[in-house]
Amino acid sequence: MTTNDMMAGGSGQDGHGKRAVVLLSGGMDSAVVLAIARARGFEAHALSVRYGQRHSAELQAAARNAASLGAAAHKIVEVDLRAIGGSALTADIAVPEAPTTGIPVTYVPARNTLLLSIALGWAEVLGARDLFCGVNAVDYSGYPDCRPEFIAAFERLANLATRAGVEAGGLRVHAPLIALSKADIVLAGLRLGVDFAETVSCYQADAEGRACGRCDACRLRAEGFAKAGVADATRYAPR
Amino acid sequence: MTTNDMMAGGSGQDGHGKRAVVLLSGGMDSAVVLAIARARGFEAHALSVRYGQRHSAELQAAARNAASLGAAAHKIVEVDLRAIGGSALTADIAVPEAPTTGIPVTYVPARNTLLLSIALGWAEVLGARDLFCGVNAVDYSGYPDCRPEFIAAFERLANLATRAGVEAGGLRVHAPLIALSKADIVLAGLRLGVDFAETVSCYQADAEGRACGRCDACRLRAEGFAKAGVADATRYAPR
Repeated sequence: MTTNDMMAGGSGQDGHGKRAVVLLSGGMDSAVVLAIARARGFEAHALSVRYGQRHSAELQAAARNAASLGAAAHKIVEVDLRAIGGSALTADIAVPEAPTTGIPVTYVPARNTLLLSIALGWAEVLGARDLFCGVNAVDYSGYPDCRPEFIAAFERLANLATRAGVEAGGLRVHAPLIALSKADIVLAGLRLGVDFAETVSCYQADAEGRACGRCDACRLRAEGFAKAGVADATRYAPR
Repeated sequence: MTTNDMMAGGSGQDGHGKRAVVLLSGGMDSAVVLAIARARGFEAHALSVRYGQRHSAELQAAARNAASLGAAAHKIVEVDLRAIGGSALTADIAVPEAPTTGIPVTYVPARNTLLLSIALGWAEVLGARDLFCGVNAVDYSGYPDCRPEFIAAFERLANLATRAGVEAGGLRVHAPLIALSKADIVLAGLRLGVDFAETVSCYQADAEGRACGRCDACRLRAEGFAKAGVADATRYAPR
């Protein structure tokens, strides 16, 4: 990861049509990342993971984002994290509706490590040397696997773990949002044509993908729109 | 990873009843690792991953190994790597029956990264700080994710990625076989009571878990028994 990756939009057309794997959750951050990868000239292969989330609205949103933002392909890989439990997002633990301190119960054990591992596997198959993910260390929820040092450690691991790292010389993990505020992410997305109404950030969205407006993810997202000074495009469920 | 971990059997009862997650494939190496973790006093939670292997005989063997070697629990997590393909073990590519050079087609993209990621997630849920895996860098098949530097990089990542690393201070990834020859692994297993007839190493075992005797895994395993000077306990399919 370089300083360049810290900037949404990066250095222009450095993708040159090369393949990249982009983790796409259906939330707002990864939609912006997909738009950034495309704007930088990468052929984007979007990857979503069905890991036992409470609702499928975000995966449906991911499919819409992949299509509308010009992904070359979109795959959904299944991994059943409910077998190990341990999070409000995958086990029978309530999602908190007030701010908490420390690492919250919505933290999914080792989630980003797992998501990046699957992305890494697909990158090897595709011959892609670039992975993109939407982790963010500013307006984030206190998850340890969203920090720059985590991304750097994963990139190092990826280059030791794989045929691409060993034989082809160099995989890169791009985290273009890592140093951006939520407001900056909103503005970057709007510049790149992301339709935020088609993204679902809420931890407990309803079947139609409408947000609760009360969980941590909703709170951070609403603050982002407010601080950016633009209308909140989120579709909220009636209360 | 310390030099101590390089020695099968390690330093005696350093587990003190602490929980550990042990990756268990059904093959001979991971069965020996489970026996080592138990011998060192860990409460062993065995983890197998159904990632789209060609046959289920090895997962059945894993269940038998977990029971006979005293695992406290055994979980099988599903992740469908067939969605990304790219290996003779998960896609429609023939398993080679003669030695090859370089990284062979039986290499599964990012497999050990993925397996360790899931083990890491379960370790967090269990409050375990120790992961065990059976990677081996001596009589191995040329996979990049079986090298000591890969294990060290994953351990570093694990401590950045997780609540346990951040709040509890220190996860360890043990690879007790990493510097052992296949013959040493056979002898270590026999000392610790591993029944090798109950393990399946073959890449293309039949439905009853009987080995082909021709693939890379079979060849390395047979050489291990021969060099150890003990009878080959493998159950072979009739030719």
